[in-house]
Amino acid sequence: MTHKLAVLPGDGIGPDIVREACKVLETLRTNFGLDMAWEEAPVGGTAYDQSGHPLPEATLELARGADAVLLGAVGGPRWEALDYSVRPERALLALRKELDLFANLRPAKVFPELAGASALKPEVVAGIDIMVVRELTGGIYFGEPRGVEELPDGRRKGVNTLVYASDEIERIARVAFDIARKRSGRVCSIDKANVLESTELWREVVTDVGTREFPDVELSHMYVDNAAMQLVRAPGQFDVMVTTNMFGDILSDEASMLTGSIGLLPSASLNTEGAGMYEPIHGSAPDIAGTGKANPLATILSVGMMLRYSLDESELADRVERAVEKVLEDGLRTPDIAAEGEQAIGTAEMGDAVVAAL
Amino acid sequence: MTHKLAVLPGDGIGPDIVREACKVLETLRTNFGLDMAWEEAPVGGTAYDQSGHPLPEATLELARGADAVLLGAVGGPRWEALDYSVRPERALLALRKELDLFANLRPAKVFPELAGASALKPEVVAGIDIMVVRELTGGIYFGEPRGVEELPDGRRKGVNTLVYASDEIERIARVAFDIARKRSGRVCSIDKANVLESTELWREVVTDVGTREFPDVELSHMYVDNAAMQLVRAPGQFDVMVTTNMFGDILSDEASMLTGSIGLLPSASLNTEGAGMYEPIHGSAPDIAGTGKANPLATILSVGMMLRYSLDESELADRVERAVEKVLEDGLRTPDIAAEGEQAIGTAEMGDAVVAAL
Ligand SMILES: CC(C)[C@H](C(=O)O)[C@@H](O)C(=O)O
Ligand SMILES: CC(C)[C@H](C(=O)O)[C@@H](O)C(=O)O
Repeated sequence: MTHKLAVLPGDGIGPDIVREACKVLETLRTNFGLDMAWEEAPVGGTAYDQSGHPLPEATLELARGADAVLLGAVGGPRWEALDYSVRPERALLALRKELDLFANLRPAKVFPELAGASALKPEVVAGIDIMVVRELTGGIYFGEPRGVEELPDGRRKGVNTLVYASDEIERIARVAFDIARKRSGRVCSIDKANVLESTELWREVVTDVGTREFPDVELSHMYVDNAAMQLVRAPGQFDVMVTTNMFGDILSDEASMLTGSIGLLPSASLNTEGAGMYEPIHGSAPDIAGTGKANPLATILSVGMMLRYSLDESELADRVERAVEKVLEDGLRTPDIAAEGEQAIGTAEMGDAVVAAL
Repeated sequence: MTHKLAVLPGDGIGPDIVREACKVLETLRTNFGLDMAWEEAPVGGTAYDQSGHPLPEATLELARGADAVLLGAVGGPRWEALDYSVRPERALLALRKELDLFANLRPAKVFPELAGASALKPEVVAGIDIMVVRELTGGIYFGEPRGVEELPDGRRKGVNTLVYASDEIERIARVAFDIARKRSGRVCSIDKANVLESTELWREVVTDVGTREFPDVELSHMYVDNAAMQLVRAPGQFDVMVTTNMFGDILSDEASMLTGSIGLLPSASLNTEGAGMYEPIHGSAPDIAGTGKANPLATILSVGMMLRYSLDESELADRVERAVEKVLEDGLRTPDIAAEGEQAIGTAEMGDAVVAAL
C-alpha cells in the first residue's frame, strides 16, 4: 500500500530543510522501492499570513489522513506579537492533540565527529546516547482549569492544572519499555513524586506497568531536579528516560544541547495507530532562511525516524542514517557544524551529498 | 540587639557540617563582635525518630522566633518508606511555608580552584556566576486542588495546580531586581509563557514591576526549555535569573552542577521581614555521615549569606567568604573536592582551617 505523507514546511528555514528531506524521500522511491506519495500544506506563521490561522482546516485534514507528517519548523519574530491563540506554536500543540500524538521520542545522541561542539568535556560527551520519551498530549500543557482571572481585590490570578489519568501514564510507559527492550533494557522514569501527588501517581503506574508487563526491563526513578543535575554530571548513565510533558520539554532540550549535535537531532511524535509527526528539534532560524546556510540533516534524520516508526521500513531507515553518518565522516559540514577554519557547504549541497550516499 | 539563631542540624552529615559552621559563628562572636545566641533543635528524620514528626512544634516555634535559621540537611534512605506526610522533606516545605520564606537565593558560582571538577570545558565553566532567585512558597508546590482520586471507571487521576497571584509575582520580582542592582544590573525571567497562562501572567507582572520600579535594570525573558539549554551552551550569559518554584528547583540544580563546585554552594530563603533560612544546596549524604569526610564549606558559606541577608553584617560576611577562598587557595581539600592524588583533610580540620583564616 502506498504510504501517504503530509509535508508541512512551515516557517523560516522550514522550506529549505524540508526540500532536502524530500529529495531523500524521492530517491528512496525511485531507487529503493519506497511506495509513497506526498502532499504539501502550509502551517505556522506562513499559514497565518495566508489564511489567518496557523493550522488551517485543510492542513489538519491532510495531516489526519496521512500515515506520517513531516514538519520543518514554525515560528519567528514576525508573529510574536500576535495573540497567542493564533501564534505559530499553537499549530504544533493543536496537531499533537488532534492527531493524539501522545508519545514524543527525542533521541539525544552525540555524533563523534561533532562532539567537539559540545560545552562538555570530550570524556563526558562521549557517552551520550539517550532516548527521551516525553508524554505529549497531557499534563499541564492541556489541563483544565487554566487561564488568568481578575480577583475582586484587583489582583490577578493565573492558573494551570497538571493532571494525569492512570491510562495516559500506562500508554506512555509502555512506549518507553518497548523502546528499552530494543536498546539497553533500562528505563529511568523522571518525576517529582516527593512534592507533586500527580507524579506520585506517575511513579506508581510506571512501576505497575513495568512489574506486570516488562519484568525483563530494569526500571529506576529519579526526581526531576536531580535528573537535570545528573544529565550534566554524567549523561552516560541514562538510556531511555520517560517523563511528563513539561519535564520532558525541559530535560530533552537540556539533553540535546549536551550532545553538541543539536543541528542533527530529529524527533518523532506518535499515536497508538503508529501514525506520527516527524520534525527536527531545532527551531525555524528565520535569520538564515533562504540563505542556503541551514543544516538539513536533522530533518533528513527525521525522515529516518518516520521510516522506522510509521512506515515500517527499518532497512530504509538504516540506509538514511548510514548516509548521514557517511557525509559526516567525509567531512561535509554546513556552517552551523563547521569548526573554525573548516570549509562549509550549503543546504542543497548537503542534501545532494546525502542522496548520493544513500 | 542580640541576633537569635535557630540551628537545625538535621540528618546524615547535617550535624557534622553544622558543627563546623557553628565554630565559625562562635569565633565571630568571640573575636569579631558578632552579637548572637543560638539554640539547637531536631528536624527531619532525626526528629521523626524522636517524636514521630519531622518538624516538631517546638522546632517550628524556635525557628519562628529566630532572626535566622541554619539548617544542615534532611532525609536519607532510612525514612524513604515512610508515608509522605511525615517524610523528612516535609519539614523543609513546612518551614518555608510557615515562615513565609518566599525568596530562595541560590548562587551558582564557580570557584576557580575547583573548576576542573566541572563536566564543562574550562572555557565554558570559567564564566559562571549566576544568582537564581526562585519563588519558594507558591506555584505548583502549594496549589490546590491537589491529590489522587479514584474515577468511577476504575482509573485514577492525579492533580496538582500551578497558581500564582500577581502580588506573589511582584514580591519575588522585586527581590530579583534589587539583587541585580547590586550585581550586573541584569535580570532574566524564566517562564513558559507560550504554553502556560499562569506564566504569561508571570511575564506580564515581572515586566510591569521592572518598568515601573526598576527602569535602570535590564530585563529579558526566556522560555524554561531554552533556559535549560542555554545554561549548558553558554552559562556565562546569565547573571540574575528569576523564576517559579518548580522551574527554579530544576534550573538552580542544573546551574549548580555546571559549576563543579556543588559541595561549596550555599542558599538562602528569605521572607519580607528579612528573616531567613540558610542551608547548603547539597544533600544529607548518609553514607558518609560521621566519617569526617563531609565538606563543611557550603554550610560555612551559608553562614556568610546569613550574615549578609538576615543579620546585616556584610563585613563579617565578606570575612567568612574570604576565609573560605583562602583555604581553597592554600590547597586544602575535603575528599569530595580533592583531585586525583591530592591529599584530603577531614571535616573538622577544614572547619578549623576556616576559623584560622577568618
Ligand atoms: C513551541 C512549544 C510549544 C513546544 C513545547 O513546549 O512543547 C517546543 O518547546 C517543543 O518542545 O516542541
Ligand atoms: C526536597 C525537596 C522538597 C526540595 C524542593 O523540591 O524544593 C529540594 O529539591 C530543594 O530544591 O530544596
